Amino acid sequence: MEHTVRAYDNELDAMTGELARMGGLAEAEVADAIRAIARRDVVLAETVINRDARLDALELDVERKAIRLIALRQPVADDLRRIVAALKIASNLERCGDLAKNIAKRAVVIAEADPLTPLTSSIERMGVLVTHRLKDALDALASREVDRAVKVWRDDHEVDEHYDAIFRELLTYMMADPRTITACAHLLFVAKNLERIGDHATNIAELIQYEVTGESVTDQRPKLDSLER
Amino acid sequence: MEHTVRAYDNELDAMTGELARMGGLAEAEVADAIRAIARRDVVLAETVINRDARLDALELDVERKAIRLIALRQPVADDLRRIVAALKIASNLERCGDLAKNIAKRAVVIAEADPLTPLTSSIERMGVLVTHRLKDALDALASREVDRAVKVWRDDHEVDEHYDAIFRELLTYMMADPRTITACAHLLFVAKNLERIGDHATNIAELIQYEVTGESVTDQRPKLDSLER
Repeated sequence: MEHTVRAYDNELDAMTGELARMGGLAEAEVADAIRAIARRDVVLAETVINRDARLDALELDVERKAIRLIALRQPVADDLRRIVAALKIASNLERCGDLAKNIAKRAVVIAEADPLTPLTSSIERMGVLVTHRLKDALDALASREVDRAVKVWRDDHEVDEHYDAIFRELLTYMMADPRTITACAHLLFVAKNLERIGDHATNIAELIQYEVTGESVTDQRPKLDSLER
Repeated sequence: MEHTVRAYDNELDAMTGELARMGGLAEAEVADAIRAIARRDVVLAETVINRDARLDALELDVERKAIRLIALRQPVADDLRRIVAALKIASNLERCGDLAKNIAKRAVVIAEADPLTPLTSSIERMGVLVTHRLKDALDALASREVDRAVKVWRDDHEVDEHYDAIFRELLTYMMADPRTITACAHLLFVAKNLERIGDHATNIAELIQYEVTGESVTDQRPKLDSLER
């Protein structure tokens, strides 16, 4: 019985460790994608694009481990919540990787056009904020501290405020100089991708709260319910 | 024992039934959101926006049923795959609802500006294609026919081709008449949302194949790996 319990704990730890690895890789992908945009660094962008496959593979592995744990161990209560939360967190991190890869692809396209430094600087600032939120969410995951998760969850609106400002800035630029429209359209999507990465950080914070307390706080998310105008 | 098995089957059927209801509602949300854009129908848009909460609630319910089934019945092999697939399909359908709600919100904004009929007609055509793909995926789900799922999965590129054409069309319009830039930026996001709904239809088709055959085909997805240029 004790051997079985230890084997279960080992498998659970292996899954948790893989999740932590995913977190670190996702953080790096996001940070490097933003850097590639800001510095017009095509080589760095290609690195981000190629590295994304590793995140996809890790997600499949977390999933296999989770399903195996469920099938073999019949987890209940806390343990089942932990496995369900891990599956969903892995899914959020894999999506962050996809979004970072998409940002990197656009960095390659934008580097072919003339620099739009005021705009890419704004994007970079939003990117730094989003990268910090993702890092905070992953720190809360590692320590399983609900307070840290709550803090990430509560400040969700900051990213939306950045996004709204950048949207207006991009539209103003496009109207003033139609030659920049193509590059600005790409930056519009980069900003939107960053907003969505911010959402994933908030999702991860909610999942930590769900895992530790057993309660879902999704209904109470203080979301800025605005649409770009 | 037989009573227990029957209770399990009843619970599984209840979950499957709820998934089917989600599918029907997601189809309606997507179709109505597109109609709201094409007809500048603000009332219809508001209906779509308000109905989305129902999809969110259904997803939570499918999830609760799935977790309950896992905790109580220790499902293995086919049954476990079916429950995992159901969870993921529910997540894809809930995302389709969010995307439809976002399209509807933009329909309200666009209706305040002058009509851009050539553009909204193109969007409508893409929307009809995407709605059909979602319907085909849900038909394949109901009948559990792998062949139908494979067909949806294989034609994934059609949506991307529509998207690329609309992207170029929108940029051309913006460059020709900078007064249309704001409305066109919103249509850019509508087109992107439709592309993503198309991706979710493909995801659902892959999950059906996974559920029935036990194999994942995600690596072999014939994706048009292009970026708008």
